[in-house]
Amino acid sequence: MSTTILHGIIGYTITPFAADGSLDLPTLGRSIDRLIDGGVHAIAPLGSTGEGAYLDDAEWQAVVEYSLTRIAGRVPSIVSVSDLTTARTVRRARFAERLGASAVMVLPVSYWKLNEAEILAHYHAIGAAIGIPVMLYNNPGTSGTDLSVELILRIVREVDNVTMVKESTGDIQRMHRLRLLSDGQVAFYNGCNPLALEALVAGAKGWCTAAPNLIPQHNLALYQAVREGRLEEARELFYRQLALLDYITRRGLPTTIKAGLRLTGLDAGAPRLPLQALDAEGCRYLEELLAPLRR
Amino acid sequence: MSTTILHGIIGYTITPFAADGSLDLPTLGRSIDRLIDGGVHAIAPLGSTGEGAYLDDAEWQAVVEYSLTRIAGRVPSIVSVSDLTTARTVRRARFAERLGASAVMVLPVSYWKLNEAEILAHYHAIGAAIGIPVMLYNNPGTSGTDLSVELILRIVREVDNVTMVKESTGDIQRMHRLRLLSDGQVAFYNGCNPLALEALVAGAKGWCTAAPNLIPQHNLALYQAVREGRLEEARELFYRQLALLDYITRRGLPTTIKAGLRLTGLDAGAPRLPLQALDAEGCRYLEELLAPLRR
Amino acid sequence: MSTTILHGIIGYTITPFAADGSLDLPTLGRSIDRLIDGGVHAIAPLGSTGEGAYLDDAEWQAVVEYSLTRIAGRVPSIVSVSDLTTARTVRRARFAERLGASAVMVLPVSYWKLNEAEILAHYHAIGAAIGIPVMLYNNPGTSGTDLSVELILRIVREVDNVTMVKESTGDIQRMHRLRLLSDGQVAFYNGCNPLALEALVAGAKGWCTAAPNLIPQHNLALYQAVREGRLEEARELFYRQLALLDYITRRGLPTTIKAGLRLTGLDAGAPRLPLQALDAEGCRYLEELLAPLRR
Amino acid sequence: MSTTILHGIIGYTITPFAADGSLDLPTLGRSIDRLIDGGVHAIAPLGSTGEGAYLDDAEWQAVVEYSLTRIAGRVPSIVSVSDLTTARTVRRARFAERLGASAVMVLPVSYWKLNEAEILAHYHAIGAAIGIPVMLYNNPGTSGTDLSVELILRIVREVDNVTMVKESTGDIQRMHRLRLLSDGQVAFYNGCNPLALEALVAGAKGWCTAAPNLIPQHNLALYQAVREGRLEEARELFYRQLALLDYITRRGLPTTIKAGLRLTGLDAGAPRLPLQALDAEGCRYLEELLAPLRR
Repeated sequence: MSTTILHGIIGYTITPFAADGSLDLPTLGRSIDRLIDGGVHAIAPLGSTGEGAYLDDAEWQAVVEYSLTRIAGRVPSIVSVSDLTTARTVRRARFAERLGASAVMVLPVSYWKLNEAEILAHYHAIGAAIGIPVMLYNNPGTSGTDLSVELILRIVREVDNVTMVKESTGDIQRMHRLRLLSDGQVAFYNGCNPLALEALVAGAKGWCTAAPNLIPQHNLALYQAVREGRLEEARELFYRQLALLDYITRRGLPTTIKAGLRLTGLDAGAPRLPLQALDAEGCRYLEELLAPLRR
Repeated sequence: MSTTILHGIIGYTITPFAADGSLDLPTLGRSIDRLIDGGVHAIAPLGSTGEGAYLDDAEWQAVVEYSLTRIAGRVPSIVSVSDLTTARTVRRARFAERLGASAVMVLPVSYWKLNEAEILAHYHAIGAAIGIPVMLYNNPGTSGTDLSVELILRIVREVDNVTMVKESTGDIQRMHRLRLLSDGQVAFYNGCNPLALEALVAGAKGWCTAAPNLIPQHNLALYQAVREGRLEEARELFYRQLALLDYITRRGLPTTIKAGLRLTGLDAGAPRLPLQALDAEGCRYLEELLAPLRR
Repeated sequence: MSTTILHGIIGYTITPFAADGSLDLPTLGRSIDRLIDGGVHAIAPLGSTGEGAYLDDAEWQAVVEYSLTRIAGRVPSIVSVSDLTTARTVRRARFAERLGASAVMVLPVSYWKLNEAEILAHYHAIGAAIGIPVMLYNNPGTSGTDLSVELILRIVREVDNVTMVKESTGDIQRMHRLRLLSDGQVAFYNGCNPLALEALVAGAKGWCTAAPNLIPQHNLALYQAVREGRLEEARELFYRQLALLDYITRRGLPTTIKAGLRLTGLDAGAPRLPLQALDAEGCRYLEELLAPLRR
Repeated sequence: MSTTILHGIIGYTITPFAADGSLDLPTLGRSIDRLIDGGVHAIAPLGSTGEGAYLDDAEWQAVVEYSLTRIAGRVPSIVSVSDLTTARTVRRARFAERLGASAVMVLPVSYWKLNEAEILAHYHAIGAAIGIPVMLYNNPGTSGTDLSVELILRIVREVDNVTMVKESTGDIQRMHRLRLLSDGQVAFYNGCNPLALEALVAGAKGWCTAAPNLIPQHNLALYQAVREGRLEEARELFYRQLALLDYITRRGLPTTIKAGLRLTGLDAGAPRLPLQALDAEGCRYLEELLAPLRR
């Protein structure tokens, strides 16, 4: 089993669509190059930002294949393979592994609330199906299921290749408990942009974020400042980028990142309906937020 | 445009799976006959109870086709066509209309939170694509999106064939507001089993429920008692079935209805993973609840 | 031990203040007469509506004494004696009993959250100190403490003179559970105005409300219609008064009832600061709501 | 007007009671000396921890008088003067000022929810009545009222001597917004113990806490480490004391601090009923938490 543990700034990709709604893979390629040129430590295709939930199977596979080919091992990759059924999640995880992903990310998406036994069995099935590490992802805001710290740690103990935990509730106490209850042994990651300073201070190994599509140097500088213990500077860096982090998170990542890419020279189209492109007022506000950060 | 307005007990079907996970359509047929024999006023294939979200497209179409053929116009039918993308929802709505559904039901399922403009455009697109009525379904517990009463009424006003509203928040005040703000002109339906008595008293036109798979005569008797103003009797009938209504709702409908069908002689298999079959303790409890109601 | 069980419309009194902030007892007297003339089945001095929490001890005692003297046994009385400390609550309960109250009402007000043992001991102490019945009052919105149905039923079982439960969470399922878990043996009361129809339908023995200060005939008619099983009429009566019930509850009872009393000819002054008198816009809206109900 | 701005570790006092329930002022004196000897930067008598809400007026005044005399200017003092009525809050604020308090703290306690105009007028009245600074305290968990960041900043702008803001929601985003929206010009303080690391990192000027009654050196060391930018050390110090901080906050401060004082040699009696002394199991757990921190 691989023991890859990711760290640092883990950048999400968007999924560009052409005007007719079909995939625009060349633009995806350019967005991946921008992320890598920007210095991200790893790339996460097809997460929430990548509209993975809105793609059909063929599209999903095409995006994974294209992304991994384009990344070409320049940085580690972690592919989101979450699906409503265990069978499809397993199929996607195997596909990602076969194509060379460094790791997979699994959010326990649900329609009907899952109980603990069901969640546990879901992760067992995925873990048993692949040989690469799994990042467990807790985000009740999108998945509808909130995993307790105790359940998360049970899964980490029982399923060998669940070696990373991404926490997106926005509640820093969850990270405190992950650390306290595991004696600091569990690698946890921040998935809530406006919590980046505190999560890193509290010991997060990395920050999974779509922001590097727009302001990679600010995200990296914050990470480095905390890592090197330059607290005063970290605080300044954080507050400088906070309004942007807050807006893209609150207003929706596919919507705002695609708008921001266009504002910075890369047209990745609109998100897929019912999601709409950012309206004119939103674009103006986003431009105001970006201007001082892009000089 | 059809002006069908449903009323009464609207029974959800389950989707039976064989041991190998494939569709078991003959059992679906038997469960439909049981519902109709039990006296339901309408049938709703492929809603939440029907695990519609867990089926792939081919399975979904097969279930719609089989269900409508089996119902054969004996009662009106309302097919749930909700999907994450507007395009697929429209495709499903057209499919259901073409095969003869009386109406379709649309829950604004989402991964990313939708804003009001996005929700409105979603319903406009669906309404424009078909000629049969649409039941708007509000259930933040499963969809992640809570539609305000004001937004619901705006959709009803703007989209001609959205003529029915199903409310499943469990908050009776929503129904009060639907009635007050529309001067009693909007047909609303109860989607929260343990609120059945109060919803009908407050003026709901019908009750969308999976319970008639197990206790149709009790559901119908409650509906009739309220409709005919026999309040004392309605209260007794409600409290008699409440523990069951509460349990199936809280523990998950596909899980408990499939367990209950087996307990009452129809083996519809297990729900699809990660959902698991009801465990032994749950089955015992369900049997206790059913026993006094099935004599 | 007295076994008085209240029923019907239980009207709250306001506490009128003169322009200098002192008690205006003659106006309190007139408001009590209006309630009794309006037909209420019982009167509850010094509850939330009566600004009991904002009075000092001497004022509190003066209001109790004046109220009970004025009521003079024409209808039963239930005095709210809740206080932050057990000692003062006991002292107030004894005072109310000595002056002839039919019963007392106790909300477990708290600053620090109370655990179950603390709440239970609080009710034990009060129950042991007096010989008249206690109405346990659950209203987390004002008390900060939410009593589970299980804890409420334990208190009812253990403390002999806790014989009535007033539920103000607004969640009808609490009443369902009170009834189911006690086999219909616990007398429960509605404390949430916009839930009046459903609470009475679900079996509430009475409705504790400030509304009879303004529209007693509508409150009584609703109660009677449900009691006599005239469901259609009850629904009509409820929806007619709902907008008013909703507004006074949402905007604050002392504020709106005092404004409404002035609009209907009785000047009871303003609530005590920091609470302010209803502003001009609010008064206009309240007048619009009252007009069709006062003809 | 005084321009005192507090900083650092601001320690809450408890209010000791004798076995008969009366004030035990000599023990209060010893607890104050312990805090000052422990190195706190300021002392806050009669806050939530001091059971101020459970005292009658005479007791409250006695505690203020005794505390300020005992502190004797060795460190600044900030007295909590919150009360349900504006008139009593003003009276208490004047009393504290007259007796030499450096500042007062005001939580907008409420029974009925206050609207923005009412909260604003409350702070205006208090500000106008005294010449010492006011710390506005937001803690919906105990006060029932949640002040938005916008309202807080409006009060700070409009009322000259409201110069400090204590935030106890536990949501670090509130502090972010206080800082962003005021361009870093508002002095904010942490009132949520398990958020101490992050609040200080985010720029809090101080930490209002009852913990220095038990582990002052750990609280001070954490504050100094953050202040001096020793991030790694701050993180270690925080995690070392976190389980204790978490427990005393969750289980209730008067209850646990009094138990902890007894465990560390100072018998301050039990909290006032309905609050009960910490039970045996709780005491054992608290002792376990304290042991490694008191060596």
